[in-house]
Formats: sequence, structure tokens, C-alpha cells
Amino acid sequence: MTTHSNPEPTASGASAAAATAARIRIVLVGTQHPGNIGSAARAMKTMGLDRLVLVAPEVAPNRESEALAAGADDVLAAARTCATVAEAVSDCTLVLGCTARSRRIALGQLAPREAASRLVARAGTGGEVALLFGRERTGLDNEELQQCHAAVHIPANPDYSSLNLAAAVQVLSYELRLALLDAGAGAEPARVDPPASHAELEGFFGQLGEVLEQIDFHKGRSPESALRKFRRLFLRADLDAREVRLLRGVLADVERSVRLAGADGAGQG
Amino acid sequence: MTTHSNPEPTASGASAAAATAARIRIVLVGTQHPGNIGSAARAMKTMGLDRLVLVAPEVAPNRESEALAAGADDVLAAARTCATVAEAVSDCTLVLGCTARSRRIALGQLAPREAASRLVARAGTGGEVALLFGRERTGLDNEELQQCHAAVHIPANPDYSSLNLAAAVQVLSYELRLALLDAGAGAEPARVDPPASHAELEGFFGQLGEVLEQIDFHKGRSPESALRKFRRLFLRADLDAREVRLLRGVLADVERSVRLAGADGAGQG
Repeated sequence: MTTHSNPEPTASGASAAAATAARIRIVLVGTQHPGNIGSAARAMKTMGLDRLVLVAPEVAPNRESEALAAGADDVLAAARTCATVAEAVSDCTLVLGCTARSRRIALGQLAPREAASRLVARAGTGGEVALLFGRERTGLDNEELQQCHAAVHIPANPDYSSLNLAAAVQVLSYELRLALLDAGAGAEPARVDPPASHAELEGFFGQLGEVLEQIDFHKGRSPESALRKFRRLFLRADLDAREVRLLRGVLADVERSVRLAGADGAGQG
Repeated sequence: MTTHSNPEPTASGASAAAATAARIRIVLVGTQHPGNIGSAARAMKTMGLDRLVLVAPEVAPNRESEALAAGADDVLAAARTCATVAEAVSDCTLVLGCTARSRRIALGQLAPREAASRLVARAGTGGEVALLFGRERTGLDNEELQQCHAAVHIPANPDYSSLNLAAAVQVLSYELRLALLDAGAGAEPARVDPPASHAELEGFFGQLGEVLEQIDFHKGRSPESALRKFRRLFLRADLDAREVRLLRGVLADVERSVRLAGADGAGQG
């Protein structure tokens, strides 16, 4: 058996890793117990992460949170609180959401290791990224998951998968730390074009929804199912900002064509 | 970007993994707070481990342990208590001990991933193996460490390395589970929907090219550059056959709308 050391970043690698870590935010959505917010802050800090965002917690951080944060009260004190997931991640170009495995989610599922590696790769090239954790009992709801590029699933024991919130944050933060230490060696080449932000993508999805109505795509069916499918495929494509502009250009031309038909009083039958 | 599932063991892989897991024991040495014994049992069970051994706990498992074990009270109830580390691991052929990094330990140090892979490899060939966790404040003492084949170090934030006992058990149990799943993994899981064939994709790109002409997307510019960009983004999305049909449905509706405008003699200016 050989003697091993764990990989440690070099001095310059360490500061690059710190800059990358600072672009990774942990987002707790609808947390029910304030103690769990403190435990999550502690789990983050043990792994060198310090950007915590709370979306509509049921109870704001309080003394119980502070007690469980132990020495991570600085992370807790710096936590930002938002009303919605959209507000929490609007400037992010990669958003992943932790879920229990579920058949009804049609999102791509990543293992924690792969998720961490993608988040760190993106953050390493200057992008803001977010990892979402849902409510203790019910997780993230469908609307929240639809704002994620992919889901992350911790491959727990199927007969007893009740990791508590802090344990899930601990496992993912640990994987993020390993990925950050790994990345100390050499960062990924930068993308030519900046990835699209959450707000840019939502603008595109909004316009797509309008155009589908205008061309009577749904034909009496409910639009939600089709829109979910389009969100899924375009989020998976990991669009850059120029590609979103390109797609919106197509939509604008479709709208113009349809308007011309309408303006000329063209009947639909 | 591809759609991934996490590896799941096949039926026979699962039972082999269970037999291997049953040869891995988690040993808590000199635990001070009985609640932590319960939390550790829970962390183990979420990752499919159930053999817990207690060496001289300061307080025997009690109601607090049970409360924190949540649904893992079976693991707690089956826990064996020993007086010494030697008694706890006497039949083991591989014994690893978790430590904070320390210069005074002359033991080889393993990262959690490597430790898990060695423990699982040994257990997979029929050997009994043990992973030791020390006291909350002081860890394992030198005499205990000297009974270990190697030390395991979680690469925590050097400025704040205070993982609590349950968090450390969670991280190592998670790595053990991944190693167990790896060992049992067979073929790649099938996608729900078959990926689109080359011909299906080319059919889509051909129709897209026609529609872009019909809505005057290019406006005098050469179409090639735009088409290249669309190919790139849709190929990156790794579309399945259903998604190609969905997208072609949109294009068909756009064509119909534009035809209506044309049939009614709507001028373009």
C-alpha cells in the first residue's frame, strides 16, 4: 500500500479555485425548518463554499439556524433572500436542481459528480451557476424544476432515501470541492460566446409560447405539455446568448408573417 | 449534451452489491454524543449500509439516538458494542481510519474515493472490512490508528474543517455506495425515447431551411451561416425522435400560416 496525499491546489490554483467557488451559489427553496438552513451553511463552509441564497423560506433564519451553523455564521449572515427561484437565478447560465429520482420528471438526470464537474467548469469560465435544493418534504415543484437545465440525483438506497437537507448539501458540496480541487490544474477553454442567462432563456420561452398560439400549434390541446417538452430540449442544448437571439429572430419573422396574414383579413378556413 | 441516467445495478448486480455491502462495517469509536450515533445510522442507511459497530461509546444508544436515526432504528438496534477497536475489527482484512489531516500520522493517507474503492474491492472478494470514525473532538488516538492499514482524509476547507461525525459518515457512505454501484453496474440504461436517427435529423434540418426561406429569415444574407448555427445547437441537444416530430409539427404550422397569407394574396410590403 502506497502513501498518498490528497491533491492540494497550488497557491495560484487556490486563488483561481476561490474565484470559481465564488460563482457557485447554493439555493435553498422553501426550507421549512430554520435549523436546516444553519446546518446547510455549515456543510457548505466545510467544503469551502460560501454563497447561500434562500428562496421564500417558511421561517427566516433565527437563533436555531445560528446554533446549527456553528462556525459558519458568516455564511448565514451573508445569505440573500429572494421571493422566487427566477429572482434567485436570473443571472445564472447553468441551473441544476436536486431531486429524488422520479419517473415524472423528464429532465436529464445527472449524478452528483457529473453535476459538480459541470458547475465548476462553467463557473471556471466566468459564468454564474446555481444548485437548487427543495423543501424538506416535497422537494422542488414542477415549475421550479422547469427552470433547471438538468436534475441532480443522489443515488441513495431506494428503500430508504431520506437524506436530510443538510446531508444532501454536504454530499453535493463535497463533490463541488473535489471538482474545484481538480480544476486547479487546468481550466476548460472558454466558450466563444457567453452562455445564455436564465432571464434570456425565459424571454425566449415566453415568445415561443406566444408564437405557438399564433400559429395554432396546440389545436385545442393544453399548451403546458408541449411547452414543457420545448423547455426540456432547449435547456438541454445549453444555448449561448447569440443562439437565443438567433432563435428569437426566427420567432419574430414567424410573428411578422402571421400578422401579415391577419392584417390582410385572411380567414383561417 | 446528452441525457443521462444514474447507473443502477441489474438484478443480479444488486444482490452481489448487497452481499458486498454486508461485509463493510462502520465502526464509531468513543462517540461522545448518543445523538450522533443515531445520525450516523441514518447516514449509513441512506447509502445502503447497515453494519454498525460501537467501540466504548461514552453514552450507550438511547432515545436521542433513536430520534435522530429516524427510520434507521433497525441499523441502530442491530449495532454491536465492543470494548476495543481490536475486538471490533479482529476478523477484518482491511481497516481504514478517518482522520483530520495530521503531520504526526505516519500512515498512508487515502482520499475518500480511493478508500471506498479499496474497501469495496476487498469486500467483493469475500473479505471483511472496516471503516473507523473517532471521537467528535479528538478523533482516533495513535494506538487506534496503528491498527489501521491506512488513514482516510476528507479534503475539507482547511480554514473550517469541522465536519460533524454524521457528515463525515455521510460523505464516506456516499463514496462507498458509488463504489458498490460501480462494482455491480452492467450495461448503460436505455433511454426512454429512442434518439433521433441521422435521417430524421436531416429531414428536420431540410424543412427548417425551407421555412426560414418562407418567412424571409435571411433577408438577403446567405443562408449557410444561419443553418450551420441551427445544426450545431440542435445536434448538441441530442434530440430524440419524438422531439424531432414535435419540432417538425411547429414548422408545419408555420408553413400553413404562411401559405394562408400567400393564398390570400397578401403582399409583403
